[in-house]
Amino acid sequence: MITSKHKYILDESELPKSWYNIVADMPNKPLPPLHPATKQPLGPDDLAPLFAMELIKQEVSFERYIDIPEPVLEMYKRYRPSPLYRAFGLEKALKTRSKIFYKYEGGSSSGSHKPNTAIPQAYYNMLQGVKRITTETGAGQWGCALSYACQHFGIDLEVYMVKLSYDQKPYRKIMMNTYGANVYASPSNRTAAGSEILRRDPQSSGSLGIAISEAVELALNDPETKYALGSVLNHVLLHQTIIGLEAEKQMEMAGTMPDMVIAPFGGGSNFAGIAFPFLRKNFQEGGQIDCIAVEPTSCPKLTKGEFKYDFGDTIGMTPLLPMYTLGHDFVPADIHVGGLRYHGAGVLVSQLLKDGLISAKAKQQNECFAAGLLFARTEGIIPAPEATYAIAQVAEEAKKADEAGLEKTILFNLCGHGHFDLSAYEQFLAGKLVDHVYEPTSIAK
Amino acid sequence: MITSKHKYILDESELPKSWYNIVADMPNKPLPPLHPATKQPLGPDDLAPLFAMELIKQEVSFERYIDIPEPVLEMYKRYRPSPLYRAFGLEKALKTRSKIFYKYEGGSSSGSHKPNTAIPQAYYNMLQGVKRITTETGAGQWGCALSYACQHFGIDLEVYMVKLSYDQKPYRKIMMNTYGANVYASPSNRTAAGSEILRRDPQSSGSLGIAISEAVELALNDPETKYALGSVLNHVLLHQTIIGLEAEKQMEMAGTMPDMVIAPFGGGSNFAGIAFPFLRKNFQEGGQIDCIAVEPTSCPKLTKGEFKYDFGDTIGMTPLLPMYTLGHDFVPADIHVGGLRYHGAGVLVSQLLKDGLISAKAKQQNECFAAGLLFARTEGIIPAPEATYAIAQVAEEAKKADEAGLEKTILFNLCGHGHFDLSAYEQFLAGKLVDHVYEPTSIAK
Repeated sequence: MITSKHKYILDESELPKSWYNIVADMPNKPLPPLHPATKQPLGPDDLAPLFAMELIKQEVSFERYIDIPEPVLEMYKRYRPSPLYRAFGLEKALKTRSKIFYKYEGGSSSGSHKPNTAIPQAYYNMLQGVKRITTETGAGQWGCALSYACQHFGIDLEVYMVKLSYDQKPYRKIMMNTYGANVYASPSNRTAAGSEILRRDPQSSGSLGIAISEAVELALNDPETKYALGSVLNHVLLHQTIIGLEAEKQMEMAGTMPDMVIAPFGGGSNFAGIAFPFLRKNFQEGGQIDCIAVEPTSCPKLTKGEFKYDFGDTIGMTPLLPMYTLGHDFVPADIHVGGLRYHGAGVLVSQLLKDGLISAKAKQQNECFAAGLLFARTEGIIPAPEATYAIAQVAEEAKKADEAGLEKTILFNLCGHGHFDLSAYEQFLAGKLVDHVYEPTSIAK
Repeated sequence: MITSKHKYILDESELPKSWYNIVADMPNKPLPPLHPATKQPLGPDDLAPLFAMELIKQEVSFERYIDIPEPVLEMYKRYRPSPLYRAFGLEKALKTRSKIFYKYEGGSSSGSHKPNTAIPQAYYNMLQGVKRITTETGAGQWGCALSYACQHFGIDLEVYMVKLSYDQKPYRKIMMNTYGANVYASPSNRTAAGSEILRRDPQSSGSLGIAISEAVELALNDPETKYALGSVLNHVLLHQTIIGLEAEKQMEMAGTMPDMVIAPFGGGSNFAGIAFPFLRKNFQEGGQIDCIAVEPTSCPKLTKGEFKYDFGDTIGMTPLLPMYTLGHDFVPADIHVGGLRYHGAGVLVSQLLKDGLISAKAKQQNECFAAGLLFARTEGIIPAPEATYAIAQVAEEAKKADEAGLEKTILFNLCGHGHFDLSAYEQFLAGKLVDHVYEPTSIAK
């Protein structure tokens, strides 16, 4: 007899000791990245100017499990294992017969799931003697996570923060400063890429693609500097599987398994983190767990994008990746969800979607913030705007199940808290948030 | 053999089932509150216009343990038991031989220890059919906690927020709105008390004492409205003992007991919450645990105040309480630590200090923010400004111990995160924070 609890907690001795690499189990392996100039498949050496070699090895690995180094485990133990909650309050408010669980990643130092990959990325760079890292950040979750990780491992960090978020979320910048990083609004005049964008559009509010161009350019031009990315890439998604690996153990503690796993979708790390270990059950044990990625209607690469080779950045400096994309020069609407304003989807997630092994949905921001507000008032935690996309989908799935007379078990990833996103809630409460349709706009040439 | 861990976690089944009432063990019982007009000892009925009767009973109880009602335990289980951390990172940075532990209360919905009393206060008011509650808040921690608790138990809430913090911390206000409360900057023109203060000083940045006057006035004038206080009173301190009761179990898990327990001091709930259960060990088992309250140099009621009967609010509407005070019309300097800008100390803590059973220290804010920054960079959590006062004292005690060749075990209360206080960190990083000496100023007559 298993008692229902509010939360399922693992002891730090139960922290998973390895990450799960879904490539080992994928029926169709991902296509290789191509060199931006030659269009030929890339080798590890081609990536060496940007990334530490251990990360490149992980990027191309076919091994099913990859050991988590001891110093990374030590840092993980400061905030992991993270709790799994039963959403009794939300269930009651939705009047649903379904059971809703959420994995809460907002208890980390920087308040999101991003430290799960920031810590190993900083660690492997430190091992290789890297002195400086450049990166981009959207809402600032990734920049904050990497700032703390770099501070811990003694690496200087420069963060290029999408100007829209830089202006909307000043506290995120201060948090990065508090951890010791330097932060610049992107597009900036510190790079050729940023200067070029500003020449074309002096009022540019930036995008993740532009910020990536700036950070990549600086790394390519300095042999002592490497670049770090907070989502999209295989090694990033790999590190995030710690979320789902823990959640699987915790669902067992709760005496059940999810019928569906839901997560917001930006570049893929949030979704992959919670979903890949459950997809493993589908692959290895013939499970039928629905894994659903939820993206903004106005930035719908999964539901309206095209599967093709495209650049990861706006200018076109990164390798070409086989992915669902809206075009590398697509400029998303100014929605209040910085982490989801990216034109492309990670290679692994794109291949899985193409093969029909996962599904995708798109949502408008007003529906999502309404779900976020309901969650805050019933569960107490104010969700990051990104997470509200998952919550809105959860509410929809619970309603569908009720209407069909079914009782589902739904798990979602509450990837972070919304403490730095309250101006968006303020606008929602004031009725000032606007819904956007998808328009295939691109940056002025 | 007990292994050192990063954190000590209790299962929700191990949540304490009763609060500890230190009055039962105090050698000198606290003096009674006096009626503001008659100066005669108050009876429970005199407090009934302000508080729910169950809370009044707790206020005057001599019972050693008071059961926590089941609905309160259910709400506690959403975020409690809270973790106890070993501060390996801070220890290393301080190069100390001492062991440092901290109880982290920032993982609650509103990010501080305040829900520990907000939840039972809202619950007992709901039981009694109260429709509306008024309260004050300084930095906003208390207001946020009570907003969520009132939302949960279906009670309307009006929050009077000290204007200095209302302007410095707009996100706290939005958080309260998100939970469904109405928030007003204090002094306001919504009350006679606020209007009178504004008449004397139109530029008033407010104080906790003024905001209390406003909230109390509204409750006294409406039989359907009660008032709630976030610190100072006996029943508030009682509820907070859940912190120390858990910490005691967790220190046992760590195979040790603290030589000293340190907490920041505003009105007493933070300090009492962690210290009273350890003082119980002193009383009952002849323990010698040093319990140290740390207050701002510019608001030093414990170290420079006078022990006497004084009002809890600025105008003089509350009962007279026997406490260390700087005078009820004292206006503290505009330091960045809203929760500690209060003129008086809770009755229980005042009596314990008078009897030499606890001690008190005062700190300047630059020393505290420097300690807070070191903590953020080494432990990852950005502490609430209030908590930095404890951290600075911890650093001092560790240094003293090292110089004396001793190895101490130090426990402190990390009462909340500083996510809404980053503008203060920004000013500290820019070298713009000013230290203040104590000046016995009072509001213009």
